Amino acid sequence: MKSVVTIGGGTGQFTLLSGLKKYPVKLSAIVSMADDGGSTGVLRDELGVLPPGDIRQCLVALSESEMVMRELFNYRFDQGGLKGHNFGNIFLSALEKITGSIDEAVRVSGMVLATRGEVIPVTTGNVVLVCGRERVLHGQYAIEVAPLLERERETMRMEPEAFANPKAVMAIEGADCIIIGPGNFYCSIIPNLLVRGIPEAIARSRAKLVLNCNLMTKAGHTDGFTVADFVEAVEKHIGRGRIDFVTYNEKDPDPELLAKYASEGEPVQPGNVAEISREKGFIPLAADLVNSQIVAPRSGDPLKRTLIRHNSEALAALIVRNCLGGL
Amino acid sequence: MKSVVTIGGGTGQFTLLSGLKKYPVKLSAIVSMADDGGSTGVLRDELGVLPPGDIRQCLVALSESEMVMRELFNYRFDQGGLKGHNFGNIFLSALEKITGSIDEAVRVSGMVLATRGEVIPVTTGNVVLVCGRERVLHGQYAIEVAPLLERERETMRMEPEAFANPKAVMAIEGADCIIIGPGNFYCSIIPNLLVRGIPEAIARSRAKLVLNCNLMTKAGHTDGFTVADFVEAVEKHIGRGRIDFVTYNEKDPDPELLAKYASEGEPVQPGNVAEISREKGFIPLAADLVNSQIVAPRSGDPLKRTLIRHNSEALAALIVRNCLGGL
Repeated sequence: MKSVVTIGGGTGQFTLLSGLKKYPVKLSAIVSMADDGGSTGVLRDELGVLPPGDIRQCLVALSESEMVMRELFNYRFDQGGLKGHNFGNIFLSALEKITGSIDEAVRVSGMVLATRGEVIPVTTGNVVLVCGRERVLHGQYAIEVAPLLERERETMRMEPEAFANPKAVMAIEGADCIIIGPGNFYCSIIPNLLVRGIPEAIARSRAKLVLNCNLMTKAGHTDGFTVADFVEAVEKHIGRGRIDFVTYNEKDPDPELLAKYASEGEPVQPGNVAEISREKGFIPLAADLVNSQIVAPRSGDPLKRTLIRHNSEALAALIVRNCLGGL
Repeated sequence: MKSVVTIGGGTGQFTLLSGLKKYPVKLSAIVSMADDGGSTGVLRDELGVLPPGDIRQCLVALSESEMVMRELFNYRFDQGGLKGHNFGNIFLSALEKITGSIDEAVRVSGMVLATRGEVIPVTTGNVVLVCGRERVLHGQYAIEVAPLLERERETMRMEPEAFANPKAVMAIEGADCIIIGPGNFYCSIIPNLLVRGIPEAIARSRAKLVLNCNLMTKAGHTDGFTVADFVEAVEKHIGRGRIDFVTYNEKDPDPELLAKYASEGEPVQPGNVAEISREKGFIPLAADLVNSQIVAPRSGDPLKRTLIRHNSEALAALIVRNCLGGL
């Protein structure tokens, strides 16, 4: 069975994993540990635990337990003193307090959720995402909501320095295929590549490397980014010419949705992808990757906040067909 | 396999079930739903859920999952906004909110904890324990901490009227043996017998009926109670002559422990048990039932607040040998 490693966080990785888990592959999901907003931020501050939010989304994506368990892990309390807290985050935090280890907390949670595959925190250090030199932004949430200057994007770093979880390094070294993205580019994807040992392991690995470009730019972060810009930004961390495949969407989302989304971002354009792909030596994979279903919000569905998102089946099928030899 | 039904709540039922689960019997634990103190009380008030605390203790007692899962369910947060909340209570409450059913919440929790046996809320109504006519005490917690007059003990009731969970009635009707107590007598044991349909089912059932007398009286509630007084008080609800066996402790606890416990209660005395047992037709079962180990408090152990408690193995062995034919 081929080993597939995904690298990311949040809703993007949830979507990718939901699609991939239907194929007979050995899945390892390496997850960003930079989150400090919302329920996750409160738990980090108050309990001193590592950020559970992205881990939880991956666990739920890989879960093969009853629907009610998946709903439970995504359940958000809306009343009383627990208001705003997500149940799965509380679950992971309590386990980390008891066992003293995020790795052990993830293992037990994976057992409870009957996950098909492994979820690996990219680092087990308590680290903060930071960017900028003159104006210094501390924390993923502060960065998430700020418009970033180019020189701020280029000074993204972890403080204190983050070191890779040895499990993440082993998974990357043993992978047949590594898939980066989609997801919140500077807040969920890049933070993984800022962890010392991760770019190095990717460089050493013989795995095919796939980059999934986002469907939409993010206002203030990736304005005007084309496919080539995403490739370039990732290459800054993992070295030139390492990427083997780049997936991107070729069909614009529904105009009504685009209008609603306008203040958040615009569709990512292919730009000069044909030329760039020859120059850099990657294979461009274009397809209609937009999920046309608008799902009504419900507890159990962490995707409800994202209006325009990948079609998990189409994305997984594109990757499996082209990058995994169809299996 | 013989069907054994326990009726109670709290630490007493936890101890009994922990001992019984080592024998090849089909266990059903019928649990009081009157609790409204502590973490349970806050969740009832804020989320409108049914009381999870006693259910959780039974689930943990019957769990055959990894130790870490049992520790998790008894874990109490000691920092931040979650301070004072018990994880297992949050688990059951979230599940009840999602599924809309305490029975379903208990089923899923039982699956997660790999319980050997079934836990059954005595009622699924949202009811309050009340006592007194002139001075009316509302709620188990208010009653728990108040010294009760005899006429107050005799006016214990549920408001609004509580109706039995059909699963509890079925379990009682199909039982080979029903075991009442030990536990907080007026706050955990009697509230089960105030639920309409429970005493009636006990009367109809052909099961052997065992009453486990408490080791200690509770100041303000059962001062001076002898074995005969416990029998009398239970018979008021289930009818005279229904009890087949009564267990009680015949060895005084360690004097040092007794001194520490003095303000809370005194050892229950056998009194005229020989005479009463002939009169009422039950078999008295005396043994050294005190747990002589003083367990250091730890998360995962709900018993840490009780200094003098039953030896779960001795209690279970006494019952199995005498009331279940040794199995």
